[in-house]
Amino acid sequence: MFSGILAELEKNLKSLPGIGPKTAQRLAIFLISMEKDKSLQIADSITEAVNSYHNCSECNILTAENPCKFCTAPERDNKALCIVETTQDVYLIENTHEFQGKYFVLTKLLSPLDGIGPNDIHFSKLIQKVKNENIQEIVLALNPSAEGETTIVFLATNLKDLVPSITRLSTGIPFGGDIEYSSTPTLINALKRRYTVKE
Amino acid sequence: MFSGILAELEKNLKSLPGIGPKTAQRLAIFLISMEKDKSLQIADSITEAVNSYHNCSECNILTAENPCKFCTAPERDNKALCIVETTQDVYLIENTHEFQGKYFVLTKLLSPLDGIGPNDIHFSKLIQKVKNENIQEIVLALNPSAEGETTIVFLATNLKDLVPSITRLSTGIPFGGDIEYSSTPTLINALKRRYTVKE
Repeated sequence: MFSGILAELEKNLKSLPGIGPKTAQRLAIFLISMEKDKSLQIADSITEAVNSYHNCSECNILTAENPCKFCTAPERDNKALCIVETTQDVYLIENTHEFQGKYFVLTKLLSPLDGIGPNDIHFSKLIQKVKNENIQEIVLALNPSAEGETTIVFLATNLKDLVPSITRLSTGIPFGGDIEYSSTPTLINALKRRYTVKE
Repeated sequence: MFSGILAELEKNLKSLPGIGPKTAQRLAIFLISMEKDKSLQIADSITEAVNSYHNCSECNILTAENPCKFCTAPERDNKALCIVETTQDVYLIENTHEFQGKYFVLTKLLSPLDGIGPNDIHFSKLIQKVKNENIQEIVLALNPSAEGETTIVFLATNLKDLVPSITRLSTGIPFGGDIEYSSTPTLINALKRRYTVKE
């Protein structure tokens, strides 16, 4: 439908997560229709953020300062480490206010079939950190997907002699979810992990 | 949650239509996580599109060439004119393949309370075009909102002596819609405009 520069913009916008063909078309038109100053400001702030953010040398989180604000926070528990896949996951867990320790971002999950091994998830850096900082508790906050399960088993096996407590996020039917629409593996797991209702 | 440059990017992304706080946060993280070349390409293509697109001097559509590809298309019916509010509307109507004439983009709808009058919808330019090009048919493809209705009545009143056929898009219950969830004005209109079922 579009051609030239506008088609190029539409294509680029479509490469973003959650932006389908219709949204990309609407956004492209919106960007060239809105006040020029404001749309150029959007472009500039993308450029500036991309150029300013890098992985924290301690925990791999994307940050403008190095080390990041989590690694340098004196009030956080530095014996507890939450292991996540992405920077976004850190912010989602922060939203819960349930974890007060430090973080470690794997950036990827193990996937032998795709050639993603221990080096790609910064495993030796993690081991070094766990030893140097004498970590006592690890929370594996990884997706219960094939890659997540592989990574959870790998990390638990290799860290169990170093860390007294290694846990993973609870699995089951999500709040607001529906048994009717749950997959069989989810239901099997939910039955196996059923727990006593407190009175 | 975010601070500094990333918070600024999040805020700027939130100013786009359909981008809520959660999507803005996810997109911001995604933009600084993806391959640097690709995210800078997105920023550049916004800048380039914004700097390249302007309103067509003939019909007001946003275009990189002037006059636009619709105004200069020899195969299009230059006696039929579809009047729309925005450039996006032109592309939505083009998707239907139901209209083969030319377009005129008002850029706004009349809204006396907000001080938006005939000058803001390029009314004198429209009248001039209708006269110069001897337009025989006008399709008013405007939203059936308060502002759209005001604009439809205004344009129909002022153009009726110049143009033999002036129509507006059909109003009623949308395909896939539900009587139960239709507003009273929609139902009143659907009853008034009911039509014989062909056998």
